[in-house]
Amino acid sequence: MFNIESVSEQHSEKIQAIIDSKTKPLGALGELESLAMQLAKIQFSTADYSAANALAKSAVKLTLTAPHLTIFAGDHGVARAGVSIASSDVTRQMVNNFARGGGAINAISRQLGWRLSIVDAGILEPVVSTQVKDQRLGKTTHAINQHEAMSSTQVDLGFAFAKAHIDELHSKGCNLVAFGEMGIGNTTIASAIMAAVMGVPAAETVGRGTGISAQALIKKQQVIEQALALHQDKLTDPKSILRCLGGFEVVQLTAAMLAAAEHKMLIVVDGFICSAAAMLAIQTNANVKDYMVFAHCSGEQGHEKMLQWLDVKPLLNLGLRLGEGTGAALALPIIQAAVSFFNDMASFSDAEVTNVT
Amino acid sequence: MFNIESVSEQHSEKIQAIIDSKTKPLGALGELESLAMQLAKIQFSTADYSAANALAKSAVKLTLTAPHLTIFAGDHGVARAGVSIASSDVTRQMVNNFARGGGAINAISRQLGWRLSIVDAGILEPVVSTQVKDQRLGKTTHAINQHEAMSSTQVDLGFAFAKAHIDELHSKGCNLVAFGEMGIGNTTIASAIMAAVMGVPAAETVGRGTGISAQALIKKQQVIEQALALHQDKLTDPKSILRCLGGFEVVQLTAAMLAAAEHKMLIVVDGFICSAAAMLAIQTNANVKDYMVFAHCSGEQGHEKMLQWLDVKPLLNLGLRLGEGTGAALALPIIQAAVSFFNDMASFSDAEVTNVT
Repeated sequence: MFNIESVSEQHSEKIQAIIDSKTKPLGALGELESLAMQLAKIQFSTADYSAANALAKSAVKLTLTAPHLTIFAGDHGVARAGVSIASSDVTRQMVNNFARGGGAINAISRQLGWRLSIVDAGILEPVVSTQVKDQRLGKTTHAINQHEAMSSTQVDLGFAFAKAHIDELHSKGCNLVAFGEMGIGNTTIASAIMAAVMGVPAAETVGRGTGISAQALIKKQQVIEQALALHQDKLTDPKSILRCLGGFEVVQLTAAMLAAAEHKMLIVVDGFICSAAAMLAIQTNANVKDYMVFAHCSGEQGHEKMLQWLDVKPLLNLGLRLGEGTGAALALPIIQAAVSFFNDMASFSDAEVTNVT
Repeated sequence: MFNIESVSEQHSEKIQAIIDSKTKPLGALGELESLAMQLAKIQFSTADYSAANALAKSAVKLTLTAPHLTIFAGDHGVARAGVSIASSDVTRQMVNNFARGGGAINAISRQLGWRLSIVDAGILEPVVSTQVKDQRLGKTTHAINQHEAMSSTQVDLGFAFAKAHIDELHSKGCNLVAFGEMGIGNTTIASAIMAAVMGVPAAETVGRGTGISAQALIKKQQVIEQALALHQDKLTDPKSILRCLGGFEVVQLTAAMLAAAEHKMLIVVDGFICSAAAMLAIQTNANVKDYMVFAHCSGEQGHEKMLQWLDVKPLLNLGLRLGEGTGAALALPIIQAAVSFFNDMASFSDAEVTNVT
């Protein structure tokens, strides 16, 4: 379904030579150099681009255009089982807050230059606002410990919605996307997906979410164990996992990542829930990983293990555990700095600096 | 000499109440919340500010104005002992590169919105450029394993220069400063200062700097051991440590931090060399620490230990080991994001979101 090119190693040596020609000791810009290399491989791998010539002249530039962050919101039947401190009403209330510009992600996005989309992927009651895009797959999912979260038709509709959304961003010139989510109960969903994909017990995947009690944590673990037992024969491929475990926003996150990679966009992955979607995207098509930057390690307990399993190193570790895409949003200036050094720093020969490296 | 107010805890509860009123789970913005608290304590502690009233109404705002990064450059007699891969000529070449806008710090500062000053604190041969401010304390320091790095008159002149520079930035409305440095040989100086202040052996303080060999690393350690032995009876207070161990840029870094705290500016501390200056500033007046944000843990070996000794948690860990203030520069957007959430996020009551925390 998704046609994703793996990034080319064709120009790697030339890209590394450009990085090493800059007026700094070899490797001294650490992770910024890795980011520049990743983005250069993405952007200089297209066949119709005369990358080889341009790279030979060091005349080639990286670009970041119209950075766009999309928040997918959905509700979860499992929220009724007491796995969160908040009720599902809060999902709608927070989407309303985003629509009015009052959330953390609004404040941070305004400051750092992200354009923002808010997508209703299927919350209980829709928010009436021109700021919210209707990509509803239903009116909350089923409780995963009792039923499949949704139908395969709903999964497919979610994939189509997300792809159309990304196609639209691409057509408007965006080449860098990030994603966030809002959905009371969705750390339970992400933990269940983590357990299903990684084959680890529920106990290793659960955390306090927005701040539940020790008792609620045990309940959360039980709910996940019930869900895994109920669906055990069906958790064989990403779409089935999404169908059984949900949720509506996770379906669209997964598909949006895959669609973005088709367009060779850089994908900034946020915290625990987005990383669960990233695991499913990678299981769908491993090439998508070439386009992903993991923004941060969240304070949610299972995230570090998930990142280890994915074999990725997050850029930031700021103890965030909010979701909404806030960690992804904070990574943008780091990526911009990587592009700036690659594009704008003088080389040793330009600057007449003795290169002893 | 420096009149630095410790930040007031007077309004801490009210500040925390504002942070906790925002539409997010308690503590979910992690380090951003700590930054907002620190800055609020700094900015709402002045006696003439009707902070109590404003805080009661949640009408109070944090401000970041005219962020300014100053690079202090100096040369080191000890560079002739073979402690670096580069010769002292490279200091001037790199200052020239900064003056023309070609350095990493130029590219990153342009991208992220820092204004930049380049200060010649005493490099071998001056750079002729209107972009470089003359605050020369001499024409390189003495080799610290043979002689005191400089005279006490030079130390005092450095303090006066740095204070005048900061006073000028303050008068132009700047309330956020960062510092960087350039000086071939200055990781050796920072290691020597670290050993003197922390009372640890030279071996625990030395690292590869810009990338020296294992043999040069032993040489570097020996030079520091010689210097510590030579000056052992004099390393009793910050100014004497600076006089004996140098360097010209470290003197001005130290004084600039103290002067900035006098003006209640937020101080963003860069990597290994700037942190050595920060240790001396804190030993001069412990209150300065209230104004400091430690931007990152550098790849230079001793830095992590230094940060542990200072009992601070750096914001970033990106494997940078370049100096120039690059790590400090990258912390600005994080600090801006902290200000944005504090100033611009809706409260639970504003947004009509159920507060279950």
